[in-house]
This record gives sequence, structure tokens and C-alpha cells, in this order.
Amino acid sequence: MYDPAGVTMSPEISIPTQMKAWVLGDPDELFLRDKPTPVPGRAEVLVRIDAVAICATDLEIIHGGSPASILGGLPFNKNFTPGHEYMGTVAALGPDVDEFAIGERVSVEIHAGCGQCKRCRQGMYTSCLNYGKPDKGHRANGFTTDGGFAEYAVNHINTLARVPDTMSDAEATLVVTAGTSMYGLTELGGLVAGESVVVIGPGPIGLLAVAVAKALGASPVILTGTRNKRLEIGRELGADRVVNISDENAVDVVRQLTGGIGADYVIECAGTEATVNQAIHMANRGGKICLAAFPHDPVTIDLPHLVKNNIYVYGIRGEGRSATRRAMALMAEKRFDATKIHTHTFALADLLIALRYARDRVDDAIKVVVTTRAASMLKGVAAE
Amino acid sequence: MYDPAGVTMSPEISIPTQMKAWVLGDPDELFLRDKPTPVPGRAEVLVRIDAVAICATDLEIIHGGSPASILGGLPFNKNFTPGHEYMGTVAALGPDVDEFAIGERVSVEIHAGCGQCKRCRQGMYTSCLNYGKPDKGHRANGFTTDGGFAEYAVNHINTLARVPDTMSDAEATLVVTAGTSMYGLTELGGLVAGESVVVIGPGPIGLLAVAVAKALGASPVILTGTRNKRLEIGRELGADRVVNISDENAVDVVRQLTGGIGADYVIECAGTEATVNQAIHMANRGGKICLAAFPHDPVTIDLPHLVKNNIYVYGIRGEGRSATRRAMALMAEKRFDATKIHTHTFALADLLIALRYARDRVDDAIKVVVTTRAASMLKGVAAE
Amino acid sequence: MYDPAGVTMSPEISIPTQMKAWVLGDPDELFLRDKPTPVPGRAEVLVRIDAVAICATDLEIIHGGSPASILGGLPFNKNFTPGHEYMGTVAALGPDVDEFAIGERVSVEIHAGCGQCKRCRQGMYTSCLNYGKPDKGHRANGFTTDGGFAEYAVNHINTLARVPDTMSDAEATLVVTAGTSMYGLTELGGLVAGESVVVIGPGPIGLLAVAVAKALGASPVILTGTRNKRLEIGRELGADRVVNISDENAVDVVRQLTGGIGADYVIECAGTEATVNQAIHMANRGGKICLAAFPHDPVTIDLPHLVKNNIYVYGIRGEGRSATRRAMALMAEKRFDATKIHTHTFALADLLIALRYARDRVDDAIKVVVTTRAASMLKGVAAE
Amino acid sequence: MYDPAGVTMSPEISIPTQMKAWVLGDPDELFLRDKPTPVPGRAEVLVRIDAVAICATDLEIIHGGSPASILGGLPFNKNFTPGHEYMGTVAALGPDVDEFAIGERVSVEIHAGCGQCKRCRQGMYTSCLNYGKPDKGHRANGFTTDGGFAEYAVNHINTLARVPDTMSDAEATLVVTAGTSMYGLTELGGLVAGESVVVIGPGPIGLLAVAVAKALGASPVILTGTRNKRLEIGRELGADRVVNISDENAVDVVRQLTGGIGADYVIECAGTEATVNQAIHMANRGGKICLAAFPHDPVTIDLPHLVKNNIYVYGIRGEGRSATRRAMALMAEKRFDATKIHTHTFALADLLIALRYARDRVDDAIKVVVTTRAASMLKGVAAE
Repeated sequence: MYDPAGVTMSPEISIPTQMKAWVLGDPDELFLRDKPTPVPGRAEVLVRIDAVAICATDLEIIHGGSPASILGGLPFNKNFTPGHEYMGTVAALGPDVDEFAIGERVSVEIHAGCGQCKRCRQGMYTSCLNYGKPDKGHRANGFTTDGGFAEYAVNHINTLARVPDTMSDAEATLVVTAGTSMYGLTELGGLVAGESVVVIGPGPIGLLAVAVAKALGASPVILTGTRNKRLEIGRELGADRVVNISDENAVDVVRQLTGGIGADYVIECAGTEATVNQAIHMANRGGKICLAAFPHDPVTIDLPHLVKNNIYVYGIRGEGRSATRRAMALMAEKRFDATKIHTHTFALADLLIALRYARDRVDDAIKVVVTTRAASMLKGVAAE
Repeated sequence: MYDPAGVTMSPEISIPTQMKAWVLGDPDELFLRDKPTPVPGRAEVLVRIDAVAICATDLEIIHGGSPASILGGLPFNKNFTPGHEYMGTVAALGPDVDEFAIGERVSVEIHAGCGQCKRCRQGMYTSCLNYGKPDKGHRANGFTTDGGFAEYAVNHINTLARVPDTMSDAEATLVVTAGTSMYGLTELGGLVAGESVVVIGPGPIGLLAVAVAKALGASPVILTGTRNKRLEIGRELGADRVVNISDENAVDVVRQLTGGIGADYVIECAGTEATVNQAIHMANRGGKICLAAFPHDPVTIDLPHLVKNNIYVYGIRGEGRSATRRAMALMAEKRFDATKIHTHTFALADLLIALRYARDRVDDAIKVVVTTRAASMLKGVAAE
Repeated sequence: MYDPAGVTMSPEISIPTQMKAWVLGDPDELFLRDKPTPVPGRAEVLVRIDAVAICATDLEIIHGGSPASILGGLPFNKNFTPGHEYMGTVAALGPDVDEFAIGERVSVEIHAGCGQCKRCRQGMYTSCLNYGKPDKGHRANGFTTDGGFAEYAVNHINTLARVPDTMSDAEATLVVTAGTSMYGLTELGGLVAGESVVVIGPGPIGLLAVAVAKALGASPVILTGTRNKRLEIGRELGADRVVNISDENAVDVVRQLTGGIGADYVIECAGTEATVNQAIHMANRGGKICLAAFPHDPVTIDLPHLVKNNIYVYGIRGEGRSATRRAMALMAEKRFDATKIHTHTFALADLLIALRYARDRVDDAIKVVVTTRAASMLKGVAAE
Repeated sequence: MYDPAGVTMSPEISIPTQMKAWVLGDPDELFLRDKPTPVPGRAEVLVRIDAVAICATDLEIIHGGSPASILGGLPFNKNFTPGHEYMGTVAALGPDVDEFAIGERVSVEIHAGCGQCKRCRQGMYTSCLNYGKPDKGHRANGFTTDGGFAEYAVNHINTLARVPDTMSDAEATLVVTAGTSMYGLTELGGLVAGESVVVIGPGPIGLLAVAVAKALGASPVILTGTRNKRLEIGRELGADRVVNISDENAVDVVRQLTGGIGADYVIECAGTEATVNQAIHMANRGGKICLAAFPHDPVTIDLPHLVKNNIYVYGIRGEGRSATRRAMALMAEKRFDATKIHTHTFALADLLIALRYARDRVDDAIKVVVTTRAASMLKGVAAE
């Protein structure tokens, strides 16, 4: 029976000592196994995972067989549990934790910095210099520490945000994505009301970047991409103008819509050589570009244009500066409907099917959510 | 006789109506001509130029036959007077000017924004959205409006800093360069005491970036380059470590000197594909890179590394945020000896020789200064 | 006939050479007089005033007989035209102005900095060091240069924001007030989504501070005051909780609603000794206070508490950092209904009645708007 | 024998299980007692204290009999060991600590935030919302957790800075004070080269504020006070002008030295009603004031002047934003001679004498340092 020293447990959730969890095998292998239910330490809680969304980074980690494939330098990691866009219910509290209560619904952010390096001390916990070193206190659940494709996970209290009763489990998983979009806008300055914002790439981060920018008053918000169906969702989330780059020259359209000078802010979420250069040519003098995606290989970019125009470029990973909580605040107040990007739902047992939907964009899938409540473990919510 | 309406003139300087000025002809052509002495307007003064330093950008403007060659989009500009790193004596005041007095020695910065666009209103006058439009009030002397290879120039009062009596004319011309270095450090955050700073490229901006960073307490300051003689000057200006990249792997050295994590700040002053990539690989997680130079063509860079490591990149031109005045403050207090980069002096009449020294690095020239005092107009200070 | 050199005029608006304008006499005297229609210079336009709201500062200026009464140090100013919260139609363009077109509807902000002092160069134009010196280019219409209780006014293009067709004249006058609220939030950091914000004092600035804070996602937003009717309007504008300080201890309520720690941000809009101290005791450790109002005399405050708790205090006047444009962007998108604070409308000819309503809060007046269209000059919109 | 589990100990320092430590009794009582040598936990080290300086806050804590007297709300704390300006040698490492090595000399800063509250997550660890709660991980040695008037203390690694070999023990204790001065300048913006800075009050923080401001290039730096001897030390540390307010009107002098407009930055280190008001009247429009000291009781201040002039006020405690490390960087490079404020040295056993010197300013004492090396425990360095 699960009863670790110093841990306060829920009287209502019967926590098993062994839980179900998906684990990495060789590249492209993922198995559902029994694994010890983890134990929360100081400033940590045990979260019973209720829902988890699939991110493109999950697909890369599984394909590479290890987070090392995308994060660089980490050892191959069999038995690792991926999954980082989850939400759930506080099931147990580590020693001295009173910031959260048993039974509260919570969504997460990925990164808990070590709290003891220079960057953490500056508040830059996603740039923790002890990244990937759990013994120094760093956690990035689903990246470097076990994640959410499981029944339970341990989270640092810094990484939790309360989920209001009016928000569904599935919607709450999208807060992680919205937090990344919010982080990008934060680093660009945050004060975007009345400023021109271009979002390149209508993937989940891009679509929610449209929504967050619009919620903060940006105008115009321009979304570029190649698939009309997604661009249409972007329009529903607040894009004032969408550009299908197969039909129009995005740089020309942006310049035209901004009186010839270009956009104040560009959020690049496509990660290709072509789109990075579009971003550079769309930004106005003194403009700012956030790179929220990246290509696998080095790319050739118009650096002279960037320097001559005093453009600043912000490469971001994840969701720093407590942006997830700000994103949650906007979503809690229904400032935008993030569920427009949620297209499919499966049970945790059907994760392999869910991953295929996400990877192959089966049935135009955008965000695929897996529910992990014990009750639904044996049955796929979506029919195959 | 020079006596424009509303202008207050020096009782001691006899201002001619026609002055000597070097002007552009076809590419690579420069002529010494008579030109009307310009008239200061509101918030402007007439500066009698006493000394002017040569910058690599001057060479590009002359080679291209026009500032358009490097600034893009501006029309070919015969009769234009280049030269932007000058200092001199206030000879006349525009209407209502009382911020400066006749006879004061002043150094300059290049950019006077229009004061009426969004960027100027944000204090980002080097990113003026009316760049190159003098009718909107924008001036960038030597770039878009007549510059300092002449006897006189008009300057907006915003672009002037007083020169202390203890500073020579030649040293005062170097404030423009130091201002660019200071601007770079400012945009990187400015608080560099005890932080690791790498400067790539021991040209004038790089060498003074070493000096300014050290003056502000950066430690260690590492300078990389290929010429030992210049690296040695960098050491004299405060570099804790110099790296000749022909002998050592600069990225390795930086990582070793920073406990394996990389540098907090990198100032890239070489502008090549190789060095930009070095900058990216030298910066630590959450680190910042200032691009103070740029290649002529697009370059292939390791963008994935940049994004994965939350690195920010700041492309800068010139010397914004009043950085020139901060640079002058440090130089006035003799915090570093900028004259170490001043190698040669010529008379204004010998500008063509001076330019050759600068371009071909004759006699290991770094900074070549031209003196424009009437008395020395006919005689080169340096022997040919 | 009005036909100044270099000025482009509307073909549709017949601009008189003499206009109607209210002017200061002795303290508490205001006369409707003929005055020369002003002429726009470089970077300026002539605005035909269509509506102007009354601000408490107007009442002070009129009572003091001069802006000097509240701004300090300026000379007594008979014949001065107050009024600074106006909007109108572009009637003529100064030389070289193409940023706005004849016939466009515009709202204003008060301050156009000189553009040539240190503060303006930093983007801090409301802190212009040439405040009150029109010869240096500074304008603060209604404060130091002629304002909006007139048929026409000259505005620097920096001080204009376009009014969308969907916004009424009266609503557009409220952008000036909303801009002040937005400026306060901007200086406090701007990123208020999910942060606790207390607004003290349900005057116009306070009520719109509630609206702007809520529009940007602040939560909870708490409004304190003494009049239930105004507090109710605050609730309609988005306050999550209102506190009538006659009934409850505001500091206690704030601490209770914020888990005992106090509020992240406090915007003090009441300007009394009691409320400033409440602000200090409401703010949490590391919290920030914006003082948007001020008492007439020195006050006794709990400075020890402020220092011990690392609290920062921001005294603001007016609407810097282009906050007015950000406020306009939110209002253009109907993020809040500013017209809830607009209670009465009068014709320009009835300004004295309008001022009485505003001063004595006749009929619970909050924001009293005066319309200045020629057609309504002879008739009060509100019955007496 | 001292041999706690998981702790790595120095082979050279024989750590006792019981150490000598001064502890609080009733108000104004301090006893030298045996106390268990503390044990470093995760991310902590054991420091053998080699020297500790006396701060005015120590005197208040001892007088009040408890840190509660100045920090508010904390319980009376007999057996508590004060002392927070110390330096020493790393004697033992907590589990997994490799950031510091046994035998390294270190200076400290006071505050280690909990790392898990909102403010810590923002990098504002001196404003930790768990201030005074060691179970949440917060430490403020000498304030809320045992301090440096003892042979050993435990420090979080975040609070340590390496001491170079060229710096004496006594000088290294002054880094804590310099860090506070640096923190003040940091919060004021940090970029002070060429800016006018007034320091009010030539106590230790004020004198080192002069030194730090000058090291960063501020000009002019003006110091005001009442004791000529201390003002003279300020001049030696870099003040361009000193003002004895018994002889001159400090506000007038500042305005005169700044062209009539006032100072850009004021650092108030005297903490009286009179000097706070001087600060307000010395600051220019848009200027900034740091309150680094505070009176015991509420004070009457000219708030109207502050708001009308867009002045910002920053109340600070201690030494946040890693300012101590930046201060150490400047001191390591000998940018100023902090030892000019160090006047007396005593042995730890003679702490009561040392405290009297500090409190009564015996023999013009400024900074009194106590050495705690075992060898000198029985003998006062300074003769009585």
C-alpha cells in the first residue's frame, strides 16, 4: 500500500503502489507497464492524471526513443515515461506542502528549475543551467523526468495552476500550449494592445498565439499557413487576417496591412528556413521575432536584413516567466475558446492510436487528448 | 557672408558661406568641392568639424558610390558628403537653441530620429520608421544626411555630447565607436559586472566593446580574433583572455573558462558565418548575443541550438539609447584609453590617403583620424 | 479666410479665421470669446473638435484661474483655453504631414514632448524636461497650450489615435481617461493576467482602471470607494469584488481575498492620506503601487512598511508610453464599455452648466461630455 | 564528532559538534554560548566564519531582543544568533553540492528565498512571500535564521560569492554592504554612466553607494550628510561633490549642479523625514529614488510633488537580483577601496565591545569588523 513517510494522502483516492505507465523502449517503441507510483518530496505533490494532450515533441521523443533526440546530450532513456501536457487531481502532498489541497484540480507547466543556478535565481527557470539534472532539483516532466502518459506524476508546486470548475479536463490540458504562446508574447514585451502581430504556422502553439495575442488586444493579428481548415480555426480564434502562403505572398500582405512598414511582432511557429526568413522580412525596423519552433538542421537566413533593421530575435522553449498562469487566467475568464484546437479524445490504454492520429493528422487532427481516469482506461472515447 | 535668419553665430569663428567638403561621385569617386555651409534649424547647431575618424561603413558608402549600397533602398546620391565619426566646435546655434553654447567642443552620435514615429516615441531613435526621410526630421549624418568629411555639419542637439578639456580631438572622435559598443552592452542588459562577456572580432567596435565591458566590471572578458597584434591591444584594453582562433578553438576555450556552461553575453563584431555560429555555440542557456556586424549575404546558422537554449539575439546598428553619452562619461573619467586604437592621423585634404590606410590596413592601421582644422588643411600630419 | 502657407485644408470643412473658444479670466472666470483659429506646423494637424469631456483637472485649472495652480511654476495665464479630453475631425494638415488624412476622426492624448530633452529621448514624453516650454516644442493641450473647449485645436501627430466608425464621439473622448489608466498599468509592468489588482477610488480613472485591468486578464480586480452607485458601475466594468470602505476594512478584505499576502498591484486614484496608506498596507511584499491621483498637501505615510516590504511606488501624470493607443485598441475591440461612466452631455455653449454638473456631481454626474459640433452649439443636449 | 549523513567534510578543518555562538537573551542581552554546529542540507554548505561586520540592523535586533523588532510579526526569539555581514571558509558540503569546494573562501548575501513562491519564481528572492518560514526553505541568516556571530553558519549556495585571494577577510565582509548599494542602483536602472546620482547619508551603505555609482560611471555623484569626516571619506570613494547640510541647502546645490533640473537618481540612506523630502525635491521630472533606509515611524512627505513630477520610488531591503555578486566583481577588480569604511577590528569574544564601538560611534567608528578565527577567539585585535 502507498504510504510514504511525510506524505499526506487523499482519503478518497486509493493510490496504488504500482501504477500503469507508458514507457519508452527502443526508438518508436512504447509499452504500457506497471511502475512504482512516484513519491512527492518537499514542495511537491502527487497528481492523479486525468487528461493529457499530445504534443509534436512527444512524437519526437518516442521516435528518437529518448528525450535525448531532441534535447541533446541526455543519455538514451529506456523505461522513461513521456507526456507533458497534462492535468489532474492533487492526490497526495509532499512534506510541508500547504499551497495546494488534496482534491484540487490542477494543470501543469513543464519546467521546474533547480532554484539554485544563476538563471533560476533570475527567474529564468526554463533556462535552468542544471537542465536535465534531477539531483540538482531540476524537473521537466515528460522531457527529463517522468511525465504524464501514466496514472500519476509528481509535480513541483511551482508548476501547478488551479483549474476552475467551469473548465473541462480536456480544455485544461491546453493550458500548457497556451502558456508557451503567452511566454512568447511576454518575452516580446507583452504590451501588444494595438500592435501588429503576425503568427506563422497554424499548429497548436500558433493557433493559441493568435488567441492570446487577440485577447491582449493586438491588432491586427495576421496568421499565415498552408491549410485553409486550420487558418479558418485561426480566424475563429481571433485572427483579423489569414494568409494561405500557397495563394499569397505573406510578406507582401503583412507590409500592405501595416502601412508598408512591417509588423511589430512576429511569432514563428513553423520552424522552416522559408518561414524564418519570412519572419525576418515581415518585421519592421525595431521589430521583434519570437522563434517558438525550430528546424532540425541549420538554416540559411537573411542576417544582414536583421542587423540593418535593429531586429531582435527570441528563441524560446516551453513556458517560462509563469506564463502558464497568465494563460490560465485568460482561459478561466473565457477570453478565447482553446477547445477549438481539440479535435480527438482517446483513453490512456489507446495511446498508440492517439499518437497515430496526432502524427499522421488522421481526420484532420490538431490536438489529440488522452483521458487517463481509471474508469475509462479500457475504452477508447473515439471510435476507431 | 554666412548670416542666416534666426541663427546665432560665433563671434570668433568666421563662417564662410561656402565650405570645403568631400562629395561622392560615381562609385569609388570622392571629390573635394565647395558646397554651401549648411544652416541649423530648430533644435540644431552648426558644428565646425575639428576631427573625423574613418569607419568601415564609410569605405562601403564610398565604394558603393552611395549610402544606398549599405542601407538599402535609398537612391544613388552624388554630391553626398560621407563621414560620421566626427567631433568639433559649436559655431552657430539654430533658433531657440540654448542647450549648447557657441565655442563648446562636442562629439556626435549618428542618428537623430524623426521624433514623430512610433519607434522614436519609444526612445528607439536608431530604429526610426522615417529612416532616410529628412523631411520628416530624421537625420543620420554621413549615412542619409551630409556628414563630417567637410568643414562644417549641422547636428540635432540630441546627437551631441560635450567633450571635456582633457580629451583630445582625436580621442573624441572615438566616442562614436565606443557608443556603439556601449549600445550593444545596453541592449544585452547593461548589468555586466561579474558576468562573462565574449567579444568576437578585434576591430574598433570589438576592441572598445572589450574596454567598455571591462569598465562596467564584466569578468571574464574574452576576445577572439585572428591577428595577434590586435588581440594584444584588446588585452591592454582589459581582455582577461584573448583567443587567436587560428591557434585555438574559441568555443572550447570559452566553455572551459566558464565552467562548461558558456558565456552570458557574446558581442559579435566580425560578421561572418563562422563567427555568428561561434557566438551561438559560446552563449550559455538563456544567454544573449549582440550582432554588431553583419555579413553581406545570408548565412547558414545553427538556429536549432539557439532556440533549444533560449538564446536571444539583438541586431544593432549604430548607437541608440543615448549610449554615446554613457560612453563619453566613461571616457571622460579615463576608465579606458580608447586612443590605443587610434593609429594614424591625416589632414582633411589628404582624405584619400587616409581612406587607403584604413581600407588596406596599411602599417597595421586600425583607426585613422582626419583633422579638419583650417590650419592643417594643406598638410598631412602623417608622412606618406 | 483661413489659408496659412504650407497647410493643406479640408475641402469640406470651412475653417474660419476666428473661432469660438472658452478662455480663462480671473480665477473661476471663463468666457466664450473669438480667438484666431490656430495654425498647424510641422508634424501637426488642425483638429475640429467634435466632443470634449470634463476632467477634475479642468475644474482645478479654472478655479485657479491658470494651469499654474496645479502644475506649479507656470505664469498666470489669462486668455488660455483649457480642456484636454477631446476628439474631433482632422480639418487641416501641417507641412509634410501624411500620417493622417483630412476628414479622419481622431482622439487625443495630452502630452507631446519636446522631442529634444533627455526624457523625451528615452520615450518618457510625459516627463519632458521642457514641460511648459512651447518654444522647445513641448505641448500639453489644455495644460500648457490651448486645449479643447473651443472649436479647433492644433495637435502634434504623436498625440492622435484614429477613432473607428463604430465608436461615438462621446465614447472617443473617454480614451484619454482610459489611456491614463492604461499608463498606470503599463508602468506597473503590464502583465497583469491572473494578478491581483486593487483600484482605490471609483472616479473616472479608477473605473476605467478596473475595466482595463480586467480586459488584460487581471484577477481578482478589487475596487474600493465610498459611493455604492459608483462601485456598482465598477462591478459592471469588471470588478470581481467591490468594497465600500464605510462598511468594510478595505485592507482586511484585500488580504483575505489574496490568501493573506496582499495585492500584487494597487492603483491609487483617490489621492487622500488615508487611501495612500491603505495602498501601502494592501500591497504584498514586492508589490507595486501606482499613484494616479494626489492630495494637495503633504501627507503622513507609513514609509517604514513600504521599505521593509520592498514596495515600489510610481507617481504618474497623464498618459505616457503611448498608452492611449493601447487603450484605444481595447476600446475599438469593445473589450469594455467605457460609456458606462459617461452620464451627461451638453453643447459647447453650455460649458458653464456642464462644469457645474461635473464639479457638484449634479444628478450623480461622473463624466460630463460637451459636444462642439457647429450644429449643436446653440442647444444643450441635456435639459436644465 | 561532527559527521552528519550525506555531508562532505573538510579534511583540514576539525569541525566540532558544539560551536561557540552569541545568542539573544532578553532585549539588549547577548551571551556567548555553546550551540550545536548546524548541518548543511541540500544545496547548502557549512561556512566556518572568519570575519563578520556589524550593521546597524544588528544593533536593532539586539536592542529589541529579537529580529521581530525590526522585521515585524516574527516571534520573540531567544537563543537566536544574529550577525549577517560575514565571510568565511567552506568547511562542509551538503548532499550533492559541487558548486563550491571545501576550503574556498566565500562572502555571503543575506537572503535565500524559498524558491517556491511567486516572487522567488520572478527572481525577487528578497521579497520572498515565505519570508521568515524556514520550513518553506526561506533563510535570511542573521535575520530569521541563525547568523554569523558564531564559529559556523549554514548557507544556501545561492548566497555565496567566492572571495579572491587578493581580498582580505575584513574587506570581504563589506561585500554585503556594497551589495545593498548595488541592488539599489540596479533597481534604479543600473545604467548610470554619465547620469547624476545623489546619495543622502554617509553611513556604510551610502558611502559604498557613492563608490559603486562612481565605479559604474555616474557623474556627477553628490553626497550629502552632516559629518565632514564621513563626507571626506565619500570624496575619497569618488563623490564629485559633498554637501554638509548644516552649511548648505542640499536641494539647491543639487539643482545648481544639474543645470536646474535636479538629479536623475537619488539614493536615500538616512531614513529621516527631512531627507526623504529632500530626495523628492532633488529628483528631476521622471527621476527615480531608492529608499535604502527608513524611519521608525510614518513620515510626512510631499507626495503631490512626487506624483506631479512622475517620480518613482523604490523601497529596498537587503541585496536582491544577485547584486552582491556584481558588487564583489567590482571589488575584486579593485574599482574602489571599500576598506576606507572599515575602522575597527575585534575578536569574536569581544563582540560586546565591538557592538559598543559601532553603536556609540566610539573613536569615529564606521564599520566595525569582528574576526572569528579560532586562533583569535581569546584576544581582541583592537586594544581597549
